[in-house]
Amino acid sequence: MMAVQDKNKAVVLLSGGLDSATVLAIAAQQYDCIALSFDYHQRHAAELDAARALARRHACEHRIIRLDAGVLAGSALTDADIEVPEHGGDGIPVTYVPARNTVFLAHALAVAEVAQASDIFIGVNAVDYSGYPDCRPAFIEAFQRMANLATRAAVEGQLIRLHTPLIELSKADIIRLGVGLGVDYAQTVSCYQADAEGRACGVCDSCRFRQAGFKQAGVADPTRYRTS
Amino acid sequence: MMAVQDKNKAVVLLSGGLDSATVLAIAAQQYDCIALSFDYHQRHAAELDAARALARRHACEHRIIRLDAGVLAGSALTDADIEVPEHGGDGIPVTYVPARNTVFLAHALAVAEVAQASDIFIGVNAVDYSGYPDCRPAFIEAFQRMANLATRAAVEGQLIRLHTPLIELSKADIIRLGVGLGVDYAQTVSCYQADAEGRACGVCDSCRFRQAGFKQAGVADPTRYRTS
Repeated sequence: MMAVQDKNKAVVLLSGGLDSATVLAIAAQQYDCIALSFDYHQRHAAELDAARALARRHACEHRIIRLDAGVLAGSALTDADIEVPEHGGDGIPVTYVPARNTVFLAHALAVAEVAQASDIFIGVNAVDYSGYPDCRPAFIEAFQRMANLATRAAVEGQLIRLHTPLIELSKADIIRLGVGLGVDYAQTVSCYQADAEGRACGVCDSCRFRQAGFKQAGVADPTRYRTS
Repeated sequence: MMAVQDKNKAVVLLSGGLDSATVLAIAAQQYDCIALSFDYHQRHAAELDAARALARRHACEHRIIRLDAGVLAGSALTDADIEVPEHGGDGIPVTYVPARNTVFLAHALAVAEVAQASDIFIGVNAVDYSGYPDCRPAFIEAFQRMANLATRAAVEGQLIRLHTPLIELSKADIIRLGVGLGVDYAQTVSCYQADAEGRACGVCDSCRFRQAGFKQAGVADPTRYRTS
């Protein structure tokens, strides 16, 4: 096994949910990871506790970046006045957070350049997802292209690679992959309105994709649900 | 004159320097502006006082977004251990701040989407500038392309336009344009190491471009220099 100091560094966006926990497990096989989480005044701040536990498990550096209140606004996830719906319905749902992945990846790019990392991992998925525009392959490709025009590192030849290992996987595939890598999904919080202890509602979009994924994967669902 | 409520909204990145003050004056002719400044623990925080005064003069909404310490790191502008040089020298200077314009524009995109603005103004300049990669036209074009894949607004047809009215102008041209629009350059702070009162060093890259610009424009330089 390679010693930690021989690995290249990578920045991994870690929300604390099922997808990003799997991505961290994938990235940690090959890279010395800096996990990056964001406190953006999200309704489901319990995911940050989950992120802390996941980063600790991988013994990787973990930074929680606090975004100014009101930056990621106008969403059911950040505005207490907008209710999290039980069914997504048509189109892009109210849980969409304006420009969230752009803001997250911009921070990841800044951290990567200072840490001399050329690799950024993000757990976007374009199969079992909520239809957010900034989860699509075309967005990721355009961000990478922009990033490689943005930095001194890129000008000097150290190009950025965005890794999206889950992008074409179903939720069940992601779970099977993660179980194989030893991910403890009991540590993860996916629910859009998890309570302070990280217990899930069981009815939001994110809970429904997760439940269906465990069922299809034939893996026992370790999620703690709150009894309503 | 149009009433304020008839104007479209625009987000204007306002550092408080000469360039962004000119951009705000240009944008304010046509748009109802939201000026956006960043407290990123910069050495020259006096520019934020300048930004406040400029926004007040245009009676526009002004938001100062506080970035987490350590996000925009690894630069002479944010790290007290790296000295601001008197001459830029070859290549990209140590005053380059990793991924700064990407982080700033990502926030501008988030604010624009929530405010239902389709226009973002940024005072980048590729003529009399310090050679920063994220001031080049190719970077701006790539950011706009990415932004138009990132948001719900774009998916629904409200595309983002990035305006860079200064990009091909010399510093002297910018000053002439601004004087014509009534910009009071005495209110602006460009120096990379301005003191708390906004007084300039007179020797850094930014000061030298500014001084030369006033001279070439034949405009009296209103900059307050500190006597060393």
